[in-house]
Amino acid sequence: MKNEIGITAKKDKDFQEWYIQTVLKCDLADYSSAKGFMILRPYGFSIWEKIKEKIDSEIKKTGHKNAYFPSLIPESLLGKEETHFTGFTPEVFWVTKTGEENLSEKLAIRPTSETIMYEAYSRWIRSWRDLPLLLNCWNSVLRAEIKSTKPFLRTSEFLWQEGHTVHATKEEAEKEVLDILEIYRMLIEEELAIPVLTGMKSDREKFVGADFTTTLEAMMPDGKALQMGTSHHLGQNFSKVFEIRYLGKDKEMHFAWQTSWGVSWRLIGALIMAHGDDKGLILPPKIAPVQIIIIPIFYGDKSKEEILNKVKTTAKELNEEGLRTEYDLREGYTPGWKFNEWEMKGVPIRIEIGPKDLEKKQVTIVRRDSKEKNQVEEQKVPKIITKTLNEIQESLYKSAQKNLENKIVTLTKYDEFKAAVKKGGFIKTYWCSRNECEDIIKEETGADIRLIPFDEEKISAKCIKCNKKAIKISYFSRAY
Amino acid sequence: MKNEIGITAKKDKDFQEWYIQTVLKCDLADYSSAKGFMILRPYGFSIWEKIKEKIDSEIKKTGHKNAYFPSLIPESLLGKEETHFTGFTPEVFWVTKTGEENLSEKLAIRPTSETIMYEAYSRWIRSWRDLPLLLNCWNSVLRAEIKSTKPFLRTSEFLWQEGHTVHATKEEAEKEVLDILEIYRMLIEEELAIPVLTGMKSDREKFVGADFTTTLEAMMPDGKALQMGTSHHLGQNFSKVFEIRYLGKDKEMHFAWQTSWGVSWRLIGALIMAHGDDKGLILPPKIAPVQIIIIPIFYGDKSKEEILNKVKTTAKELNEEGLRTEYDLREGYTPGWKFNEWEMKGVPIRIEIGPKDLEKKQVTIVRRDSKEKNQVEEQKVPKIITKTLNEIQESLYKSAQKNLENKIVTLTKYDEFKAAVKKGGFIKTYWCSRNECEDIIKEETGADIRLIPFDEEKISAKCIKCNKKAIKISYFSRAY
Repeated sequence: MKNEIGITAKKDKDFQEWYIQTVLKCDLADYSSAKGFMILRPYGFSIWEKIKEKIDSEIKKTGHKNAYFPSLIPESLLGKEETHFTGFTPEVFWVTKTGEENLSEKLAIRPTSETIMYEAYSRWIRSWRDLPLLLNCWNSVLRAEIKSTKPFLRTSEFLWQEGHTVHATKEEAEKEVLDILEIYRMLIEEELAIPVLTGMKSDREKFVGADFTTTLEAMMPDGKALQMGTSHHLGQNFSKVFEIRYLGKDKEMHFAWQTSWGVSWRLIGALIMAHGDDKGLILPPKIAPVQIIIIPIFYGDKSKEEILNKVKTTAKELNEEGLRTEYDLREGYTPGWKFNEWEMKGVPIRIEIGPKDLEKKQVTIVRRDSKEKNQVEEQKVPKIITKTLNEIQESLYKSAQKNLENKIVTLTKYDEFKAAVKKGGFIKTYWCSRNECEDIIKEETGADIRLIPFDEEKISAKCIKCNKKAIKISYFSRAY
Repeated sequence: MKNEIGITAKKDKDFQEWYIQTVLKCDLADYSSAKGFMILRPYGFSIWEKIKEKIDSEIKKTGHKNAYFPSLIPESLLGKEETHFTGFTPEVFWVTKTGEENLSEKLAIRPTSETIMYEAYSRWIRSWRDLPLLLNCWNSVLRAEIKSTKPFLRTSEFLWQEGHTVHATKEEAEKEVLDILEIYRMLIEEELAIPVLTGMKSDREKFVGADFTTTLEAMMPDGKALQMGTSHHLGQNFSKVFEIRYLGKDKEMHFAWQTSWGVSWRLIGALIMAHGDDKGLILPPKIAPVQIIIIPIFYGDKSKEEILNKVKTTAKELNEEGLRTEYDLREGYTPGWKFNEWEMKGVPIRIEIGPKDLEKKQVTIVRRDSKEKNQVEEQKVPKIITKTLNEIQESLYKSAQKNLENKIVTLTKYDEFKAAVKKGGFIKTYWCSRNECEDIIKEETGADIRLIPFDEEKISAKCIKCNKKAIKISYFSRAY
């Protein structure tokens, strides 16, 4: 059986191989016969459902509503905003036929939904009463990946949410961009237990069609940055092209201000990389679809019935406390095999119940992260489990935080910079804010500007590349 | 403002126009610039979310899990099962290019996911231990509609769920087909308050690639049938082509048995048609995103603060009871305008709170279905509301049930049959079970076999068309 061998690659020796094995052997995802496309398997999907649940509830609380827009966009509509079109066309999947008929106009499978949504917005928005319009879509988008694909990180189709809002003023839109970034930060740090840096993208790296893009960037254990989500201020770039105008309280017509923002299933990729170990996944309790797995241990048929009973009542008790608990009664597998399987799948806590536990009115609890094993008195189980889950959540965050801190260096000399890029991690440095320097650095080192911090320090330094006066602090890194 | 005029068509005079106006003016859906494609607007989407929630919870309770499969299917894969391919190709949207590159093999946007899923199933299933495999996908599928489109009922893209299961035996698959049909029936009758007939599709009407198809059919007020969902027994048709085989407990290799089943957003279309009236939507309380709308009535500024307070505390109290309650405090709209708006949107109960209500420690309750208006003492509000919601749910079902009963006739003469088809409704009759008769009837009358009941009566009658010995009872009707 494929699972019996477990993960054979070491995380710190062969990170890429370890990642792929973890994805495939934990049944998170699989390749498909459509090249570059990935199947999200039930276990992976259940993690996505948890992430979705949290985001969905946060954005609904703040007044956003869900909707669904067509997956196909006529070429002329996609082309309305020129920089947007130029940015996306190389990756677009084009529909040119239905059945045997050639279409008179090509249709793009949405690479993102700005254009198809904003055409409707221009019809829906008439007056200030219609604002703000706060919509979100949970859907899939397609962008052809010509480079080799990597599950969750680089595939030709991915699941995401895309929010698209319309506001009366520039300031209101600005607030929305930052409010959403803060929702994302909370979700990623508090639920996924992954610390992030937040800031602005450079002009080169911003969303095509945006005034500015804000981003959340995490640092993976292999020293590469991972963009976790982005929130864009679109200014009036689209509203002017799509004629999204409203009658203000001042009885004048105004072009509206817009934002768009999204996170995708790449968050699952981040979870895998940030917390996993040589045995496989380690899921933060808050996002784990199964938080506790109970495994019975039989010796022969002795006390089998009693043990089964105990397993079921313990599961019931924990589920009633809102702790997501399952048990594994499959026959023909040894307890040891099951231990390995559920460890690989990253379930935060394992409970073992055998004859000795029964006798002593206890259960055995094993932590996935530290492997620590403890006997716990029956009546204390829910309390101890709750406490332990919190500890695991905290401990995962702390160790990811340590990884992040260890992987930030501040440098001012280009030679040191080049060496540091090879080593991996964020390099905090100074930059003249000209595209040319950014481009040369990327070409020469493979690192780009991941973010420019919001809090601008007063800078007296020089640009790392050209030695002219630096205007901005920038975090460079190679990235996924 | 567009809503101010309300719905101008009469449901029993111009049903089609009434339907379209209801869809558009209630903000359920809108057309888009992709021809044949529909936008599901937030209000419509919130109804879809309710439907989804109920189905999702039922199928999870019965052991099914969600997953996501690619939206593009290589032509060769779609073509593996021949009748399936022939059935779907005329409707397929074909991707032939990415960016400027022509693809070496065309990719179909999924019209349904059997082929892309079963290729993966053949890799995942090895032994009886891997069975049953019970997966479901919430996604969108595309089928080019050449005829004119109608929101929710006939569009080139629709949202649905598609379940795909694999079993060790024919009988187990058969049980699955019927279990799912029963889940659908419960949902549709008990939540959507729409009575259905269940039965088998004829060979002509069954799913392309299935051994047999079971169906749920509702009768709309205009006399046309609406297929609400289907559940298919795929036999070994796909497992043989895709080589989905398992090692049995008998140490032999066996081809597996499969089912697939789905319902789509056309259920929302059914809701609109089944329950609406000249004022617009009427939503069954169990599925209504907003069950109670509270509207304050001010006379000048007198007691405004107090009324606002009362509105908010009443809403809070009801929401705490699990009753989905909102209030409408928008300024610049009269109470009468708000009454019309929320009536049109089909919210089951309206609560009015004005100075007189405040004075008498009461609220005014108005039922959307019967328009009945009652004053209710403050402390009795949650109890009376709960009771009234149940009554509305029941009353909607009963009146839909009456519509169904009134629209079934049993006929044995073809002349009468032809006249009855024009009138609308189900015609229960007898049929020789030959495709030829079914085809001629469809050609001559526009009616087809909606279903063949499960409970076979002993038949001594003759075929309605050819007068040969009848084999089956069949329900004919024109349909959406």
